[in-house]
Amino acid sequence: MLLDGRKVARELKASLKEKIAKLNNKPHLVVVLVGSDPASLTYVNSKKRQAEQVGMASSIIKLPESTSTETLLETVKNLNQDDSVHGILVQLPLPKQIDTNRVIEAIDIHKDVDGLHPLNVGLLRNDRPYFIPCTPKGVMRIFEYYDIELEGKNALVIGRSQLIGKPIASLLLKENATVTQAHSKTKNIQQLIENNDIIIVAVGHKAMIKKDMLNEHHIVIDVGIHEDGETLVGDVEKASYDKVKAITPVPGGVGPMTIASLLENTYIAYLRKEGLDETSI
Amino acid sequence: MLLDGRKVARELKASLKEKIAKLNNKPHLVVVLVGSDPASLTYVNSKKRQAEQVGMASSIIKLPESTSTETLLETVKNLNQDDSVHGILVQLPLPKQIDTNRVIEAIDIHKDVDGLHPLNVGLLRNDRPYFIPCTPKGVMRIFEYYDIELEGKNALVIGRSQLIGKPIASLLLKENATVTQAHSKTKNIQQLIENNDIIIVAVGHKAMIKKDMLNEHHIVIDVGIHEDGETLVGDVEKASYDKVKAITPVPGGVGPMTIASLLENTYIAYLRKEGLDETSI
Repeated sequence: MLLDGRKVARELKASLKEKIAKLNNKPHLVVVLVGSDPASLTYVNSKKRQAEQVGMASSIIKLPESTSTETLLETVKNLNQDDSVHGILVQLPLPKQIDTNRVIEAIDIHKDVDGLHPLNVGLLRNDRPYFIPCTPKGVMRIFEYYDIELEGKNALVIGRSQLIGKPIASLLLKENATVTQAHSKTKNIQQLIENNDIIIVAVGHKAMIKKDMLNEHHIVIDVGIHEDGETLVGDVEKASYDKVKAITPVPGGVGPMTIASLLENTYIAYLRKEGLDETSI
Repeated sequence: MLLDGRKVARELKASLKEKIAKLNNKPHLVVVLVGSDPASLTYVNSKKRQAEQVGMASSIIKLPESTSTETLLETVKNLNQDDSVHGILVQLPLPKQIDTNRVIEAIDIHKDVDGLHPLNVGLLRNDRPYFIPCTPKGVMRIFEYYDIELEGKNALVIGRSQLIGKPIASLLLKENATVTQAHSKTKNIQQLIENNDIIIVAVGHKAMIKKDMLNEHHIVIDVGIHEDGETLVGDVEKASYDKVKAITPVPGGVGPMTIASLLENTYIAYLRKEGLDETSI
């Protein structure tokens, strides 16, 4: 079975659009882009376009590649203080001269729709999430949409990035899965795959997980995305799609959920700022 | 082999005592105790006594069982503002009427020597620890003292508390172990124990892990502590001590490391406040 992230994202965005239409004002997402990396520019434009599709206001602030940490901190500070801004996203990665940690820690946690501020990281780790990082949040929504039981299941997360691997592990643990976190220093990956029911692959290497490493009981989430000639491919070999029990395809799996979750987080930020009931989500 | 936490703690405290003797002022630890739980009182007195043994200043603030959240927040606020205070520890658990999360979040993170503020939790999760919770820090020091290799090893953490299980998992992952976090909903604990090299037991049930569940290759850290007639027993059956490769006994294993780590954190807080070099630790 293919886990259709495009469909889940479409439904989520349709629901957000309806709710946003009833608000007095538009939630406003600001994306800050430093430099002119083509991939980053594509992502940022896509975020703006989709935000507008659901009825949000959206701005992009473009800063030159040579921007200093201090200048970027000043930009973030201004956005923090701007009452018309509900969500701030600083597109990563940042140029080398910028202290990324300082920039992320400067974002007002009430506007940290990317969920990367260490206070948000700590609250998530303590099972009291405030903003959940977008891709992990999207993955959990796919599980929920397809009614995939997590409690008591053995889940293997391959990869331990701050953006993906670690927050997904925290969320799976919160749902009572038994969670193993593997990474580049892990020695027995094949045995771990065999011993687990759910495999989250977030390694960032094209088709690294091969068909013969997986079996027909596995539920697989492929967070990778790589160009492959005219198309895209994930961290999992496409040949495995008809072998496993269920998998998120690339393209059309996790990818579309990331921006949908970002929009949802921005909507939540708006509700909180206005003192509105966020349980209505 | 028994991993002798008493010895490691004694050496750590001796080293701290030497360093503290050279300081211009004494690091000052304040422990706040609400109510009169006998176990908590014993811990708090022990912290004060050991702080004084290494040459620190130490105070206990005792508040009645009926203390409100607001009153405790006021106490914490005053301690935050008191320049003579370097470390603040609010003894847990707090009485039911108190909002523990609000109290912990009110502690100045520069004085949060227990490492429980969510910002400290997030920084630890991001591999940039500021204050590491005391028991997990003590466990890692035992590994270091006995030169136990963690990189590439499979480590099972049984238990997922904020105080113990989760921070230990974060620290093991930082040291490049492949970490599995198990808990009360885990279904295949015996299989997981067999598949792992290092077993951290922090379940809070007397002698729950039996001799026949372990083998001669296991390195075991027993974080439990329970009264058993005249003596103490951990979460691991004592009969297993001569079966496994290495284990922290109870008493005399992890327990002594917790307070030693607290003293070390208070010393670090002092150094930071005074702008002194903390790499000298």
